[in-house]
Amino acid sequence: MPFQEDFAVERFMDEYEETVEFNAAESCCHSLSLNQLFELTGEKFEFDYSKRFTYGSIQGTPALRSLIAQMYSNSDVKLTKENVLITNGAIAANFLVHYALVGPGDHVICLAPTYQQLSSVPRMFGAEVDLLHLKATDAFLPNLNELVAMIKHNTKLIVLNSPNNPLGSVVPTQLLRQIAAVAEEKGIVVLCDEVYSPLFHSCQQPKSFAQISTLGAVTGSMSKAYSAAGIRIGWIVSQNAQLLKQAASRRDYNTISVSMVDDAITRYILSHRDAILKRNLALCNENLSIMRTFIANSNRKFSFVHEPQGGSVCLIYINGVQDTDSFARTLAEKYKVLFSPGECFGVPGTLRVGLGNSTHELTEGLRLLRAAYDEYIDI
Amino acid sequence: MPFQEDFAVERFMDEYEETVEFNAAESCCHSLSLNQLFELTGEKFEFDYSKRFTYGSIQGTPALRSLIAQMYSNSDVKLTKENVLITNGAIAANFLVHYALVGPGDHVICLAPTYQQLSSVPRMFGAEVDLLHLKATDAFLPNLNELVAMIKHNTKLIVLNSPNNPLGSVVPTQLLRQIAAVAEEKGIVVLCDEVYSPLFHSCQQPKSFAQISTLGAVTGSMSKAYSAAGIRIGWIVSQNAQLLKQAASRRDYNTISVSMVDDAITRYILSHRDAILKRNLALCNENLSIMRTFIANSNRKFSFVHEPQGGSVCLIYINGVQDTDSFARTLAEKYKVLFSPGECFGVPGTLRVGLGNSTHELTEGLRLLRAAYDEYIDI
Repeated sequence: MPFQEDFAVERFMDEYEETVEFNAAESCCHSLSLNQLFELTGEKFEFDYSKRFTYGSIQGTPALRSLIAQMYSNSDVKLTKENVLITNGAIAANFLVHYALVGPGDHVICLAPTYQQLSSVPRMFGAEVDLLHLKATDAFLPNLNELVAMIKHNTKLIVLNSPNNPLGSVVPTQLLRQIAAVAEEKGIVVLCDEVYSPLFHSCQQPKSFAQISTLGAVTGSMSKAYSAAGIRIGWIVSQNAQLLKQAASRRDYNTISVSMVDDAITRYILSHRDAILKRNLALCNENLSIMRTFIANSNRKFSFVHEPQGGSVCLIYINGVQDTDSFARTLAEKYKVLFSPGECFGVPGTLRVGLGNSTHELTEGLRLLRAAYDEYIDI
Repeated sequence: MPFQEDFAVERFMDEYEETVEFNAAESCCHSLSLNQLFELTGEKFEFDYSKRFTYGSIQGTPALRSLIAQMYSNSDVKLTKENVLITNGAIAANFLVHYALVGPGDHVICLAPTYQQLSSVPRMFGAEVDLLHLKATDAFLPNLNELVAMIKHNTKLIVLNSPNNPLGSVVPTQLLRQIAAVAEEKGIVVLCDEVYSPLFHSCQQPKSFAQISTLGAVTGSMSKAYSAAGIRIGWIVSQNAQLLKQAASRRDYNTISVSMVDDAITRYILSHRDAILKRNLALCNENLSIMRTFIANSNRKFSFVHEPQGGSVCLIYINGVQDTDSFARTLAEKYKVLFSPGECFGVPGTLRVGLGNSTHELTEGLRLLRAAYDEYIDI
């Protein structure tokens, strides 16, 4: 049996999600229904009642793959459907890149903190994984010199995540280029998990790594920026034809094809992405402003680990509390409010806050956090 | 990089599926649309336009899990939603059982021929795999004595498939009980891929292995018997709580949750499963009768490897043709008709025929097969 630890944040959320009153832990932008999408976009989604439920287009419909290719193209880099493979969410996209690339004898460098999957899956596949720790002195960005020093003869994959979960830090274009240059010189694939893109609420939008690297790959999905986690569509975008071919070959063993209905809903949503992103960036900005005020008025009880630049989550210190796992459980059980403990990301003493939640849930969540803190640290 | 060969049947189908005129290779019962399901069931599927696209119920909705539990229950064995884990199709269900159970140092016994995934995935996870070959002298059923002799101290998993793909053989209840007894005595999990169940067109319906074994697991999906491959819902059913817990824990790393819309459509379809199964059993019976006549009139050019008892595929010998891979490519390229070559299942000299295809496609397919044979073996 291949060893793999429990997925801390999933287990924590699963344990409490249905019993709390306010969820301030959700990492997605507040989810939308088809009715709400109609209101927002002005176009109604039309189900095709005459389409037979065959396996359909194995790699995802050409129309969907072309649409996603266009999203990752710019004036210099024109991507096509050949650069896109559709998956069951970004979770499956990330899994598939590792499944295709790493095994025993391989070395992987993964930044930390980040989504636990990104370091745990390559370990499960038998690779040796080293963590590149993000530090305040580097504005929580990968330190290029450290990265170069960590590379070994058998380094197969470097795993980035931008916007970062849970910090909200964003790797600027210039640094992405430097990392790509280092990796390509040594023939190392860089996987950049861009599932929180294009939520850039407090910085200029950097280029996608898919535009920068001819060797690397990018993953994304409908869950975070597009408010549709229940639509299980994700993707791998890459200029590396060999990598996509390997991923497609492994995908035959765990996917075959994705939901035909979800493929169609995704085309509808992404065709109207401007309206949805506008709504979600406004939501993140409003909530971030509430967070800033909350922290400023907290008498140093709470502080940002890092002021988020992008994405729909941020990490805050709960000053004076070391065991935030226990604190988060108290919040969930006694105060009926959900925040993810920093222990899920290897950063005890912190909580992850969702910036894409409904403003009401965030406001109530913060009120209860403050009340619990005042009671908790008096105990 | 973990080694894994290409998935032969998927690659073959993917190469030709969109260019042929007649598809006699399809393994599913002829797929239905929502309109056709309405006609067949008398009830229209109603989309819930007000439901937000959250991750939803992580393991699948309780309503869906209860419905599936009921399908696998009988008067003696009452299963509940706690016995069911929802997955992205049976492909993901099978993958997940291996992901949860087998790794380096483990031994797996898998019958042959069967769906390539079932022997290839455990090898990829680092397990040693031995094949239990199904033989004509055993009516293409697992030989219990051989199975017992193959068990080692480190045998972790025995993999069955009934109805069998590609043979259509069906393991009767009595033999399932004997296998369960042997395995449980040694603490070995048996995975029984029942994705072609409950298509029993030419034999009595045996019990599901999920009813027989307290340790083993069964997988199934919407693709074959329920005519809805494009709805990516599958399941693991088991009385083994520990196994389901391990599978759920691994599932956090490659699935999170399944499509919310597909979950709802599946509940609709499975609530009307009697009407759909009646249509599909009639279709398989009609096509099997056509196959029998075709073979009887073929002057021994074609013969059944095994007269199928269940499922929606069968395997036939193309007598005098050894290289059926090349023959199947000629059929696809020149005659525009698709049959899967037996090489995909380790049985050269044969073709797999879909018994659930539209009768028109099968009839035309067989006409072209006969014409190609007459031309091919004259060359």
